[in-house]
Amino acid sequence: MTLSISKVQNWIEEDLQNFYQSYPSTPLFEPIQYLLKIGGKRIRPALVLLSHQLFNEKPENARPAALAIEVFHNFTLMHDDIMDKAPLRRGQATVHERYNTNTAILSGDAMMIQAYQLLMKNPCHDQHQLIELFNQKALEVCIGQDLDMSFEGRNDVTVKEYLEMIRLKTAVLVGCAMKMGALVACASKENQDHLYACGEEMGLAFQLMDDYLDAFGNPETVGKQTGGDILADKKTYLYLQLLSRATQEEKNKLQSPFSTPEEKVSTVKEWMRYYKIDEEVKSIANQYSQSAIEHLQAVDCHTEKKEPLIHLVKQLLERQA
Amino acid sequence: MTLSISKVQNWIEEDLQNFYQSYPSTPLFEPIQYLLKIGGKRIRPALVLLSHQLFNEKPENARPAALAIEVFHNFTLMHDDIMDKAPLRRGQATVHERYNTNTAILSGDAMMIQAYQLLMKNPCHDQHQLIELFNQKALEVCIGQDLDMSFEGRNDVTVKEYLEMIRLKTAVLVGCAMKMGALVACASKENQDHLYACGEEMGLAFQLMDDYLDAFGNPETVGKQTGGDILADKKTYLYLQLLSRATQEEKNKLQSPFSTPEEKVSTVKEWMRYYKIDEEVKSIANQYSQSAIEHLQAVDCHTEKKEPLIHLVKQLLERQA
Repeated sequence: MTLSISKVQNWIEEDLQNFYQSYPSTPLFEPIQYLLKIGGKRIRPALVLLSHQLFNEKPENARPAALAIEVFHNFTLMHDDIMDKAPLRRGQATVHERYNTNTAILSGDAMMIQAYQLLMKNPCHDQHQLIELFNQKALEVCIGQDLDMSFEGRNDVTVKEYLEMIRLKTAVLVGCAMKMGALVACASKENQDHLYACGEEMGLAFQLMDDYLDAFGNPETVGKQTGGDILADKKTYLYLQLLSRATQEEKNKLQSPFSTPEEKVSTVKEWMRYYKIDEEVKSIANQYSQSAIEHLQAVDCHTEKKEPLIHLVKQLLERQA
Repeated sequence: MTLSISKVQNWIEEDLQNFYQSYPSTPLFEPIQYLLKIGGKRIRPALVLLSHQLFNEKPENARPAALAIEVFHNFTLMHDDIMDKAPLRRGQATVHERYNTNTAILSGDAMMIQAYQLLMKNPCHDQHQLIELFNQKALEVCIGQDLDMSFEGRNDVTVKEYLEMIRLKTAVLVGCAMKMGALVACASKENQDHLYACGEEMGLAFQLMDDYLDAFGNPETVGKQTGGDILADKKTYLYLQLLSRATQEEKNKLQSPFSTPEEKVSTVKEWMRYYKIDEEVKSIANQYSQSAIEHLQAVDCHTEKKEPLIHLVKQLLERQA
């Protein structure tokens, strides 16, 4: 029997519930429950479980690893929100806002340790490899966040550097999730590598479309006001490519005050369209998506087993249409 | 051949050097090198190595675990210094002061992952048990720091709660170091437990003597101005015991301003002496020390192997005399 996406999602919520209950509601653990209960798409644990079942008849074996990666991901959110001074996450107060910064630091630290505790619950033949993979990717996520922060104070960030930053900050953990599923299932090295590549390219495609939609998306479909990145001069793919092509006059205007925020957003979008950067970012995201799907197709297992995973991957990448 | 303490210390410095060199000097890793180079007594890694050699002829096998615990300990210092708003550590600027808070958060996170990377380098038969021990004790350290922070806003902290806090925040990691050495050496469960207990009780004795010396030590011997805890109304064993015994009048005076800092220190010390709290804390620290030594004596191995470890333990506890 192949697990459906909805079954996988039920498992994840069930495992999160059990996770909350296994730790007391103390000032250290309460913020962890608070953040996890804010919700999220739970993409990473779903990818662990769906990748695992390509090769293994006991899908429940991958549940601890799936939960571990979701807890780790939320640890990064807790600490990133402090560093970014973000007041809200999914419309709710962030942990450092609702509690305080010290609590967000310490509860985040505890969460990272909990992620390792969950990893150890894994009935894996090669736990060593699993933890080494996790360590490497976790460290890359830190390097990505460090790069992202360093971009704020720089005026010479290249598009290439930006792509490397989002790869490290976002995409490697998506790749890690898919490879972890394969590892727990004792899949071949080749299959592990295809799934890792699928996740990483999917993560890149997803982030680039996020940049595109923040500027050019329909606010009703995207679910938020667009133009936020432009107003914040955020160094996205679109912004960096615009800087590399704009005339000196346009660059000067970009760095001077506009009469209204609306004027800034519409002017900058016009320039981006003029230089065809809107089409370009969609095209690059599309190339990554195609490559992600190809890696998934190259995985050597029963084709029907791939269906839920292909469905999820396409659903995540659909926003590009 | 039994490793001497000085040989052990050479190994630790050598391994720290190699550790620095294995990571690039980027904004993420540079602060880690900075903090580790500030120095420290390197007690925890020495305890790993000296505990390991009680049972095993290949002392080098415990080097990665020894380094892991030193890196983890320094991670806790980096984050604790942010939370405590500490400007200095060993006379040098703390990481969040020298760089900034975001850097100290993120480099600390990276350090915790590095500690796990080092643990994985361990040629241990039961790596699973080693990591589970480390996870459990690491989480207890977070719980201890959380308790410590919560004490600041409370007026009803008991001595019992204080002892539990220092056990979690400080002592469990000392116990963990000694048990890790035993685990890597595949020592019996009984020997592991004796070493853990030795470390934990030594950690308690050490912290209680720290409290004593901060008030009653000789500034020349202690190496710092004494009375700092009293001036900061820090909830130490001495302070909490004084609160539990003082008259209402004394308590009122304690909470009112004194004419000079010197007057506050000398008055509070006088009260502590009157209630014999100075003698009491030394006596309790001494009981923990005795018990630590007894656990070490109960370890089943060649007696002469214990000599460097007994020497180090006594050296650490000597301050009580």
